[in-house]
Amino acid sequence: MMKAVLVDEHTKRLSIGEAADPRITEDGLLVRVQATALNRADLLQKRGLYPSPQGASTILGLEMAGVVEVVGGNVSGFKPGDRVCALLPGGGYAERAVIPAGMAIRIPDSFSFEEAAAIPEVFLTAYMNLFLLGGLTHGQTVLIHAGASGVGTAAIQLVREAGAVSIVTAGSEEKRRTCLELGASRAIDYKAGPFAPHVKEATDGQGVNVILDFIGAPYWEQNIESLAMDGRLIIVGTMGGSKVQEMDLGLLLRRRQQVIGTALRSKSPADKIRLTEQFASFAMPRFADGRMKPVVDSVWDWEQADDAHEYMEQNKNTGKIILRVHS
Amino acid sequence: MMKAVLVDEHTKRLSIGEAADPRITEDGLLVRVQATALNRADLLQKRGLYPSPQGASTILGLEMAGVVEVVGGNVSGFKPGDRVCALLPGGGYAERAVIPAGMAIRIPDSFSFEEAAAIPEVFLTAYMNLFLLGGLTHGQTVLIHAGASGVGTAAIQLVREAGAVSIVTAGSEEKRRTCLELGASRAIDYKAGPFAPHVKEATDGQGVNVILDFIGAPYWEQNIESLAMDGRLIIVGTMGGSKVQEMDLGLLLRRRQQVIGTALRSKSPADKIRLTEQFASFAMPRFADGRMKPVVDSVWDWEQADDAHEYMEQNKNTGKIILRVHS
Repeated sequence: MMKAVLVDEHTKRLSIGEAADPRITEDGLLVRVQATALNRADLLQKRGLYPSPQGASTILGLEMAGVVEVVGGNVSGFKPGDRVCALLPGGGYAERAVIPAGMAIRIPDSFSFEEAAAIPEVFLTAYMNLFLLGGLTHGQTVLIHAGASGVGTAAIQLVREAGAVSIVTAGSEEKRRTCLELGASRAIDYKAGPFAPHVKEATDGQGVNVILDFIGAPYWEQNIESLAMDGRLIIVGTMGGSKVQEMDLGLLLRRRQQVIGTALRSKSPADKIRLTEQFASFAMPRFADGRMKPVVDSVWDWEQADDAHEYMEQNKNTGKIILRVHS
Repeated sequence: MMKAVLVDEHTKRLSIGEAADPRITEDGLLVRVQATALNRADLLQKRGLYPSPQGASTILGLEMAGVVEVVGGNVSGFKPGDRVCALLPGGGYAERAVIPAGMAIRIPDSFSFEEAAAIPEVFLTAYMNLFLLGGLTHGQTVLIHAGASGVGTAAIQLVREAGAVSIVTAGSEEKRRTCLELGASRAIDYKAGPFAPHVKEATDGQGVNVILDFIGAPYWEQNIESLAMDGRLIIVGTMGGSKVQEMDLGLLLRRRQQVIGTALRSKSPADKIRLTEQFASFAMPRFADGRMKPVVDSVWDWEQADDAHEYMEQNKNTGKIILRVHS
């Protein structure tokens, strides 16, 4: 048995309890978890709204950083003591986790486990959506909603490193400043009025090539208005609601636009391994020499997991909320 | 001056009249048109509902087959007398047309001009949507609406040649038979009830990977129901209406689906040249040796253009309606 953060069935409060140890696989690594990070999916999952994929741990936690303890029989290239971080389909809020070796990312020497735990989910999500689904290329422009969020702050840096331009929305002066410091060309205060006119103005009336959206239905019309010919609207979340009341297929057709639903968690392990490899070859050299950095908002002891969740519910964070995991 | 089919401003009837000759360009070919073909866009264009792209001929006609008369100064590889067919942004219903040389497809010796004129628009549309936008690969399944239409009959053959599987909808026994003969695995009678249950059954409940849709809003719900995880719904037309009354972005997200608006006509000449080259290398050897064939419904004298349009309005055709152009 190991310690893990468990969800009280009735109150939905989090506390440390006991869970079965994960089993090492032939192609896997058993990792002693040192840090994990919060994701909005965790808030849904504890309320039963976003269940784990079949076969995955039902413990919360979609990413972790830690130390390899046991190496599977078919695995080469890793040894006990290696520092790695990785995506998880679940099970990060625990002392130990097992990952396919192909999903392990080596942690740069200069990084703490808390910094490393801030990388996988948001950077892989941003990378997949911007480049693989969004097709973003050098010189193009992307609109990133919730620019100061975990995915937002990762996306701004990836866009900058790819030689493209980002426009973001964010709800506070401080968040907008952070976005601009990370490389956004413009930060729009969505609380001050519609964002679409600002996007139009910033793009000489052309609109942006890609939009990363977490809000959904309430932003639909303005998103379509903000999207250039051949543009791609990537739906990463629907925090404001998911039912669009009227959608004009003819407009999509005339403007050759795409609406793309996306979710990282449910993808197959093979897809995640491929994605991790592509991402790591682009990003890890840039993390190692300081061109990119994980944005850590705050670090909490895992016994405070419940308070950390409450803090996320209130949208107080800029970047990632990290839990330090003890043994 | 040259002869061309003109639209009466008031009655919208078609008749032969006179128009200015097109001018040869340095990178172009001046072609004596021998045959052109109808497209649904022509029906819209004559009513003022689908204007020509900027700079294009305002004469009807999105494709043609003919004989090169004059070769532009920068063009190599073509000479007067060569038989070619090509996409046009307009101007096919005329004695002469000018095309960028990069868009010319050499006509196989065994093909008549009438057969060659049946190739460009529908085969390039089907190729672009199935493979470049739809990402269809070997072993996957596609649902093709209006299977007996020009684009439908082209798509069925391209799918078969790519080692993928097609399910089609068509409204008459004869049309369904044609689709099956061309290689469709199943032909659904959309007049007999909802198509989605048949698609589900034919795919063991998984749904199809790609849908080519021309109908739009009335098919929206059933299309989404028929689409597999990671599936792509390609909107090629909105003949039944374009306004979807309720669209669930959350469903797209959970199933990682894409909705893609597409139009060939408005794409840049550079894009069309690239597309033509990719298509020709896949398709022309298969046309030459008989594995694929343009599906010609009927050939009309261009003086009967008005009757031919009426025939298309009534959905009577299986495959392409061709106009023979006289000098």
